[in-house]
Amino acid sequence: MKIILASASPRRRELLSQAGISFQVIPSTLEEVMRGDTPEEIVMSLAEQKAGDIFEKLCQEPRLADITDGGDFMVIGADTIVVCDGDRLGKPKDAADARSMLKRLSGRRHEVYTGVAIYTRRDGVTQRQVFCECTKVDMYPISEAQAQWYIRSKEPMDKAGGYGIQGRGAVFIRGIEGDYYNVVGLPLAKLWHIIGQSEDV
Amino acid sequence: MKIILASASPRRRELLSQAGISFQVIPSTLEEVMRGDTPEEIVMSLAEQKAGDIFEKLCQEPRLADITDGGDFMVIGADTIVVCDGDRLGKPKDAADARSMLKRLSGRRHEVYTGVAIYTRRDGVTQRQVFCECTKVDMYPISEAQAQWYIRSKEPMDKAGGYGIQGRGAVFIRGIEGDYYNVVGLPLAKLWHIIGQSEDV
Repeated sequence: MKIILASASPRRRELLSQAGISFQVIPSTLEEVMRGDTPEEIVMSLAEQKAGDIFEKLCQEPRLADITDGGDFMVIGADTIVVCDGDRLGKPKDAADARSMLKRLSGRRHEVYTGVAIYTRRDGVTQRQVFCECTKVDMYPISEAQAQWYIRSKEPMDKAGGYGIQGRGAVFIRGIEGDYYNVVGLPLAKLWHIIGQSEDV
Repeated sequence: MKIILASASPRRRELLSQAGISFQVIPSTLEEVMRGDTPEEIVMSLAEQKAGDIFEKLCQEPRLADITDGGDFMVIGADTIVVCDGDRLGKPKDAADARSMLKRLSGRRHEVYTGVAIYTRRDGVTQRQVFCECTKVDMYPISEAQAQWYIRSKEPMDKAGGYGIQGRGAVFIRGIEGDYYNVVGLPLAKLWHIIGQSEDV
């Protein structure tokens, strides 16, 4: 079963590799549409759009046929958002935006939601699985000097919520409740079990 | 303030670097003695022995004087143990031992304790700080085939409890409660705050 990751995120790529999963990357270029009311609905919908985009292309475009070789395949899409007190925090637009996100998260608990969509084509039959995982994150208070130091490192800029738990941002995290890798961008253990890698070992 | 890590662990080294801390490594070669009754007492004592060993040497041995250059310095020692149902799990002796640890942890919650000792020499005055951090870890059930697959990767062999949350072992972790980096081997955020790096940014 060929596995295709429909994401350009280097972090998601690293996580699948860490689990020893073999896969190819075809990032979705779809202009995603925000749908749903709750964080769960939103991330699952975004993950579905990404995975669905690549799945359709693999089913329809002859030039991509050599990737699946006419055999069974699976496309994985994912999306992560950070929610603080009911508000969604995306990737910061600039340094000022990063600063206001860090001050917002400072000294309190927020939630990280990752939605995952898995489209499988097996013996010509399509199956779709979608799930969402939530991890709670407790932050130390972040002083103005600490926020500036962190922003100077440029780390906040490409990350939802303006921090990376897997990088220097680790120093601000008091603790979490749930899956750490879900905060990085992929609920790795749950995904590993759901896609059946746990039975293929 | 020079920082010295009294540990040979490549993982602890990586964590300090991740936080942007500059340090040197001088691993303690002391034959450690297990002291204390509770997991907290044991890891704090072991961390103290490691840090104390290097601290004493730096204070006394003339050949090490060029490391501290006669100035202020700080020695960090750490020790991590895994506790399941009150029993301590060390590093597995062999593959059979790793298997029995994994079966023991399978499908349940255990605790990871890391003790940290910090010896500081500032203006000729010695200060000692010791603390312990506990993280709870929930594991998925691990099948016989999964345990064998994981043992074949050799990853369990040099790790307390027989798994590495930062490696392939991630696929077995349902979630945690507390500091992720404490499970890797160092409560990075708490250490960063305690040693005053948070004020030096």
